[in-house]
Amino acid sequence: MSQFPATARNTVNRLPKRAQYDSETIYSILDEGLICHAAFVQEGQPFVIPSLYGRFENNLLLHGAKASRMIRHIQDGGQVSVAVSLLDGLVIARSVFHHSVNYRSVVLFGRGRLVDDKEEKLNFLRVITEHILPGRWADARKPSRKEMNATAVVAITIESATAKIRTGPPGDDEEDYQLPVWAGVLPLRQQVLDPIPDPLLKVDVPVPGYVSGYRRGSGEKGQAS
Amino acid sequence: MSQFPATARNTVNRLPKRAQYDSETIYSILDEGLICHAAFVQEGQPFVIPSLYGRFENNLLLHGAKASRMIRHIQDGGQVSVAVSLLDGLVIARSVFHHSVNYRSVVLFGRGRLVDDKEEKLNFLRVITEHILPGRWADARKPSRKEMNATAVVAITIESATAKIRTGPPGDDEEDYQLPVWAGVLPLRQQVLDPIPDPLLKVDVPVPGYVSGYRRGSGEKGQAS
Repeated sequence: MSQFPATARNTVNRLPKRAQYDSETIYSILDEGLICHAAFVQEGQPFVIPSLYGRFENNLLLHGAKASRMIRHIQDGGQVSVAVSLLDGLVIARSVFHHSVNYRSVVLFGRGRLVDDKEEKLNFLRVITEHILPGRWADARKPSRKEMNATAVVAITIESATAKIRTGPPGDDEEDYQLPVWAGVLPLRQQVLDPIPDPLLKVDVPVPGYVSGYRRGSGEKGQAS
Repeated sequence: MSQFPATARNTVNRLPKRAQYDSETIYSILDEGLICHAAFVQEGQPFVIPSLYGRFENNLLLHGAKASRMIRHIQDGGQVSVAVSLLDGLVIARSVFHHSVNYRSVVLFGRGRLVDDKEEKLNFLRVITEHILPGRWADARKPSRKEMNATAVVAITIESATAKIRTGPPGDDEEDYQLPVWAGVLPLRQQVLDPIPDPLLKVDVPVPGYVSGYRRGSGEKGQAS
């Protein structure tokens, strides 16, 4: 199991027992998440932007309009920090102080590059599409030359990364366990509702199985005690 | 309805019809979210950190260990950018290009200050606790002096902010509507599962109504077409 190096930038100082640096854990969180939050610096000012993404090997892939602030920053080679966070539950302790959440998160650091090569760019758009909705690429109309020209794809090589994970029941102070206060975990997860067909569907097409059966991850991670 | 000024920092250049600057919309998204992503700059390097939060009037409140990187940066008066994102569904178009997500997000900018005053600090911890789990503050053991000393609270005055919202079905190119490809929206929302009592509960306390009946927002926003 490969490890990302623990450097000053990504080392977790607070509650270090929650931190993990192995790529298997980190990739599994990246692969389950749907949106990331990418942070960058422009003229000394921090910006954080929510974005869809994909992962290809040790690269986080983003796409967007060529003129977007984030894309321009990344293609210029600027440093990026990206977080993906999965919320698994509220941790309800007897004391205010020990309230928490069960979660799995990754914070990574790296620099990006503009993906110029047409074949690589098309493949990375496929990876992003399949990350969001596996099975969709084969069915949808592929990008035209005009659409390819309007879209920029950037690949951020993950230089360093940390996963943080909290699971299980609250941890209260010993003397608080006798308090007449309910404590426990309220599990949260992403729920998929019934698909809503586009009112403008002009052809009789059944809902694809990858839509009707959509789910991400096991849905059970982080709930175990 | 008050508006945040649209400046170079917060003006949405891409798809400006999705952008809103009124405080009512912005506050409603902040009030529904559970975690934020806070970005800051340290020695030229961007950092993004997921965090619980609360809102008090025009301030975003964060708390953490005094030694944490984020808290130290904010109490030193550094610029912060914070995002809160709510994902409402996958937008499944006929063409790869028009795939999207329905979402409500806020990106805000400001500077923070360390909250020193004991009464204000305790009140802000109450606001954060009640933001996450309304009703909990009255039941839980309040912070001891030692716990208060170990916790830092920072308040970020929101100087500028933008909400972005996408709702409704996919928007495909006219010529694609005849394609034999299913299109529509797959709604997503945060699901609350049954509470799991702490195995170490030593007293017979019923599950509080604010836990068993927990839900955030209306759960219907962003789904309408």
